[in-house]
Amino acid sequence: MAKIDIARRVYNHTWKLDPIVRSLLDTDFYKLLMLQMIRGMYPDVNVTFSLINRTTKVRLADEIDEGELRAQLDHARTLRFSKKEMIWLAGNTFYGRKQIFEPDFLDWLSNFRLPEYELSKRDGQYELEFHGPWSYTTLWEIPALSIINELRSRAALKSFGPFALDVLYARAKAKLWAKTERLKQLPGLLVSDFGTRRRHSFLWQRWCVEALKEGIGDAFTGTSNVLLAMDTDVEALGTNAHELPMVLAALANSDDELRASPYQVLKDWQRYYGGNLLIVLPDAFGTASFLRDAPDWVAGWTGFRPDSAPPIEAGEKVMNWWREKGVDPRKKLLIFSDGLDTETIEETWRHFNGKVRMSFGWGTNLTNDFDGCAPMPAPGLKAISLVCKVTRVNGRPAVKLSDNPAKATGDLSEIERYLRVFGDEARVEHEVVV
Amino acid sequence: MAKIDIARRVYNHTWKLDPIVRSLLDTDFYKLLMLQMIRGMYPDVNVTFSLINRTTKVRLADEIDEGELRAQLDHARTLRFSKKEMIWLAGNTFYGRKQIFEPDFLDWLSNFRLPEYELSKRDGQYELEFHGPWSYTTLWEIPALSIINELRSRAALKSFGPFALDVLYARAKAKLWAKTERLKQLPGLLVSDFGTRRRHSFLWQRWCVEALKEGIGDAFTGTSNVLLAMDTDVEALGTNAHELPMVLAALANSDDELRASPYQVLKDWQRYYGGNLLIVLPDAFGTASFLRDAPDWVAGWTGFRPDSAPPIEAGEKVMNWWREKGVDPRKKLLIFSDGLDTETIEETWRHFNGKVRMSFGWGTNLTNDFDGCAPMPAPGLKAISLVCKVTRVNGRPAVKLSDNPAKATGDLSEIERYLRVFGDEARVEHEVVV
Repeated sequence: MAKIDIARRVYNHTWKLDPIVRSLLDTDFYKLLMLQMIRGMYPDVNVTFSLINRTTKVRLADEIDEGELRAQLDHARTLRFSKKEMIWLAGNTFYGRKQIFEPDFLDWLSNFRLPEYELSKRDGQYELEFHGPWSYTTLWEIPALSIINELRSRAALKSFGPFALDVLYARAKAKLWAKTERLKQLPGLLVSDFGTRRRHSFLWQRWCVEALKEGIGDAFTGTSNVLLAMDTDVEALGTNAHELPMVLAALANSDDELRASPYQVLKDWQRYYGGNLLIVLPDAFGTASFLRDAPDWVAGWTGFRPDSAPPIEAGEKVMNWWREKGVDPRKKLLIFSDGLDTETIEETWRHFNGKVRMSFGWGTNLTNDFDGCAPMPAPGLKAISLVCKVTRVNGRPAVKLSDNPAKATGDLSEIERYLRVFGDEARVEHEVVV
Repeated sequence: MAKIDIARRVYNHTWKLDPIVRSLLDTDFYKLLMLQMIRGMYPDVNVTFSLINRTTKVRLADEIDEGELRAQLDHARTLRFSKKEMIWLAGNTFYGRKQIFEPDFLDWLSNFRLPEYELSKRDGQYELEFHGPWSYTTLWEIPALSIINELRSRAALKSFGPFALDVLYARAKAKLWAKTERLKQLPGLLVSDFGTRRRHSFLWQRWCVEALKEGIGDAFTGTSNVLLAMDTDVEALGTNAHELPMVLAALANSDDELRASPYQVLKDWQRYYGGNLLIVLPDAFGTASFLRDAPDWVAGWTGFRPDSAPPIEAGEKVMNWWREKGVDPRKKLLIFSDGLDTETIEETWRHFNGKVRMSFGWGTNLTNDFDGCAPMPAPGLKAISLVCKVTRVNGRPAVKLSDNPAKATGDLSEIERYLRVFGDEARVEHEVVV
């Protein structure tokens, strides 16, 4: 072929949009698992998801053009699950189980589209909210986040010339490869990609997933990104998220119901899933209170995912609790997923190796680490702590306490009520970077 | 990005092979339908497939390098159906029917690999044969043909500079687009791609399929290529081929069994398939004799695919036969698939419009028409009549008579026996171009 494909070039001239999200499968696997349960058990609950930028010094509304943001969100609303994708969801084996999604759920999913959004600007930030039935608004979380994060990368790269871009990606590739070389020194290590929501870009996440597949081999257990799992033939991974206890807590009609809600989540969950999907996420209202009040049967679940306390401290607490319940931690699984990078993975692995089964869900520092890669200052390439959280449930405010007060969300008065019910034991503030 | 991706360029320098066939789904759909029946009913029959170049003036062994041919055939033997492909075969709807492939067949298919081949040269031609159980050798037909055809295109293009290549594809695209503009003038026309085996190249076939999808819209009913059907989300099409009557005829132990064999094929077929898959291929031993001896129930099948007589003449004969059986041809389907191009499609459509349902399986002149496109003489780009046919069945010679003696294959003495049993009625020689 000639060096320049004229038809392609002219086509590119008339591009209206380079869509960031091109498939409804470009989301985290646990959203689909949760969605099946939400639709089955809570079809009438209304839930608002809201964008929250914890890195307030970054003024997103100044960095990202509102027209571009609306065009990307509108494009995501045109998507449907394609025939091939529906067939794959129905036919693939997830966590060793065939037909994890029921035919009735898949029928409904085949007509799914993302609901409307509300977007405005305030103090240099975007206020982006999704109102409506939980079973619809929940699927906005991941595409909303990945769209905003990629639009921010694109804005940061607009001034880069072709060589600067080439060098940027060359360095980022070298940097990630060096991480894989360190990680493959750890025998028996298990790592997966959890980096969809805060990725630099879709293509870069795909590069990272393929690099891990080649670079660490069997130590790479899969990706949370369903589309990449399908396309690169790796496992789709993930279990459940804070939205479940947050919504059930907000639905509670008394302090007693509120106190019981974290365990109600687990009861609901095990109606749908078993085996390695029985992973407790204990920190929505503080891990200490969760363990203190947990019924004995919780120790029968496969494992825990501590997500906001420092991993060694959090893991030790869970292991002590298992021992108190007469359970051998070596038969149990800890999944670490909070702000991991090579150092924390190494340190945590060394600490727990031989004492407990463990795996690592590696997120932002896998798919969006460009620190030191740009040949010129580019603050817009530094990942920020952006989340999309449940804020209202049937008109009531929703709350997350977390083990780290810097990760708490919700109305202050409501947070105080939750602290009264659950206690404030062992919650320690740590800087939230991503 | 910089204009030249150095990593990609260096990777290309070390390419050992640009595989032509990269997936076992890169075959014709009817091979999989037939395979399910072959494995179910004739698991112990040994069948040899042999390459036959009817365009003898083209000396394939001079045009195509033997090392390259072996490398491509060897690569095809490394392929397995991938997990995603198996899930799609199990979950997709074919001809309106779910689970057309039985779980037991799919289990077996998931371990399928192409058997060994025998390759030698003789008189400037390749002798390429596949020996073994029918349920294995049958899947070699399409990849063997598409490999040889694409190697021939590649050889022809080796001397082309970048501009000559650019102009070649520009003209070929313009030429195909002009065909779509003519075809979309015919209201209610139905056309599908049957051009896998003799395509110019895989990428060009994909371009043709996507061009038809955009160019003639609903008039494009799908492709025989299973991989392209999956990837471009169109219907996978095709029913059955001459190998079924040829093998059953060769297995016949008497002239009476031989005479009955074309109808035995249909009885076998309807144990597995129904509806629009009940398409009679009548010409293996001459359409006239087939119709003369056909039981009445054959008129209950959905349609016929005349494949070697001129389409109008062949279609009229089948329609007369339907009328004799008291069947209204307007409720029946004719599928034309022999050496079609725009003119024959238009002429045939005009002749039969309103008299019978019809559709067109467009092959070589869709996916390998570069006549007048090269800016320099390139005889190697002209498609040839290359087939891969059953030649021996459990040690006995196999025969095809066809409506066109130029398409007959088999030992001369055996052809004479078949002519004695079936008769030579209405068989007329026509030049075979592709």
